Amino acid sequence: MPSAINLSEKYSQINQHWTPKIIGELNGQYVKLAKIKDEFVWHSHQNEDELFQVFKGTLLMDFRDKTVAVREGEILIVPKGVEHRPRTNGEEVFILLFEPKETLHTGDVEHEKTVKQLQWL
Amino acid sequence: MPSAINLSEKYSQINQHWTPKIIGELNGQYVKLAKIKDEFVWHSHQNEDELFQVFKGTLLMDFRDKTVAVREGEILIVPKGVEHRPRTNGEEVFILLFEPKETLHTGDVEHEKTVKQLQWL
Repeated sequence: MPSAINLSEKYSQINQHWTPKIIGELNGQYVKLAKIKDEFVWHSHQNEDELFQVFKGTLLMDFRDKTVAVREGEILIVPKGVEHRPRTNGEEVFILLFEPKETLHTGDVEHEKTVKQLQWL
Repeated sequence: MPSAINLSEKYSQINQHWTPKIIGELNGQYVKLAKIKDEFVWHSHQNEDELFQVFKGTLLMDFRDKTVAVREGEILIVPKGVEHRPRTNGEEVFILLFEPKETLHTGDVEHEKTVKQLQWL
């Protein structure tokens, strides 16, 4: 039966950067949490839109023509096909992700940071 | 191009209870915000799972065999087919919803509270 998922409690179990953990599943999508710091890789997702929600700190999302700052209490939706690079300004940032189950966080880019087998928290 | 969506700013534009407003769309799903107070109607969604996230106050979700309290910073996923009734203990509660575009908030129940044409904020 459904029970409440406490985000702070889940974040406290994450001790690696750029390693999303699954906390929920609905309609073929995963809800994931991640702690991030510094720079990720440029990538895009051919078929999947991606939602980012910020719980702590400021996520900086680079696009090819601009950078969008996403602060605590804010959401950003990156449409499929749009190249982007998440990063932070040296601080650790807590984000929630919402995307289809088949989405790899590095999209179409194979990279040492790619985590292929996501784990549940 | 993508831009950040500030949830507090969006909530400040909502002045009716039980009237979800759309703030984003991805992968055939809507992100919606709502302010709720007191009791909604018992219903279920035959084909759609539904996510609730609480931003202010405590959401009480009645199921036929128990009630789950969902507090600020917590998430609840209600699987398809499971009867539920959202309510609050007299306070105004701010929630975020994530569900397929075709989902009606009263599910399979036709009710005076049913809002069929959701609006964007």
